[in-house]
Order: sequence, then C-alpha cells, then structure tokens
Amino acid sequence: MEVDGTLLTILGITAGVLILTGWVEQIYKGYKTKRLNDVSKFLMIFIAAGSILWLIYGIVVSDVFIIGTNLAGLTLMIIVSTMKKRYDNLSKIKQS
Amino acid sequence: MEVDGTLLTILGITAGVLILTGWVEQIYKGYKTKRLNDVSKFLMIFIAAGSILWLIYGIVVSDVFIIGTNLAGLTLMIIVSTMKKRYDNLSKIKQS
Repeated sequence: MEVDGTLLTILGITAGVLILTGWVEQIYKGYKTKRLNDVSKFLMIFIAAGSILWLIYGIVVSDVFIIGTNLAGLTLMIIVSTMKKRYDNLSKIKQS
Repeated sequence: MEVDGTLLTILGITAGVLILTGWVEQIYKGYKTKRLNDVSKFLMIFIAAGSILWLIYGIVVSDVFIIGTNLAGLTLMIIVSTMKKRYDNLSKIKQS
C-alpha cells in the first residue's frame, strides 16, 4: 500500500490530541466533583511509565510529535495523580 | 543517531503493554468496588476514538504491533465503559 506521509501525520496528531483531550476532561471532572476515588492509582502510574518509554522512543527516532504528545501525557498524569492524592486525603479526613 | 530497530521494538511493545496493564488494573478496581463514577465517560470515548485512529495508522503502515495494541486498547475501553454504565445505573437505583 502506497503510504501517504501527510495522512499518517494527520492521523497520529489527531489521535494524540484526542487521547490528551480525554485526560483533560477527566481532570476537569475531578476538579468539579473533588473526587477521583474510583480512578485507579496504578492506571496513572502505568500510563506515566508507558509515556516515559514512548518519550525515549520519540527521542531515539527524533520525532517531535511523539515527544510532544508524551510530554503532555506525562504532565497530565502528574496532575491527575496529584489531584487524586489530595482529594483521597480530603475524603479520608471528612470520614474520620 | 544510529537507530537500533530492536531497541525501538522493545520500547514500543513495553510501553504498549504498560499502558494496557494500567487499564486492566482500572477494570479490576472497578469490578472490586462496583464503582466507576469518578472515571470520566468522555475519557473513555476520546481514548477509544484515539485508538481507532492509531488502528487505521497501524493498518496503513502494516504495523502488527500498533494494530494489536490499539485493538486491545479499544477492547478495554469498551469493557470499562460498559462496566461504568452498569455501575452508574446501579448506584442511581440504590439512591432512588
């Protein structure tokens, strides 16, 4: 199949932006409800670890898009896990 | 930088497996607690949409790994959103 570079770039960028948008929405929902109990701590740890490897992958192949998407993904994971830690502690305090 | 194909394959596969493992853990947590309220419905919709585009990307470049990871990712998103729908309805019934 004759591969059109532009199509691939558009596909990759759109996919990356969609996935990041999903996490921004999760952050917004968490911020609104001040609750992230049901979101698994390990989900974020594993996704952050995966993003770090994709980041290395992007650096090795010098692909700015892969580097950018995974830097953004890593940042979002750090934000969500910080929020989750805070809100989980808050709900523990309220219960005690 | 001289790019070692094997290193890239190992990086990509490990990253993909890590991310999928994160979602398996989220499914397990949801199954145990019967609660997925705090997980954003749109997170799953956006990630599923992103996975579909990566799937097309993988088909266009005939990359079995990208196809496999994103088929698995799509399957996990369908499972989590089905569970979320059921548990959200259950908690609404309990509240009424």
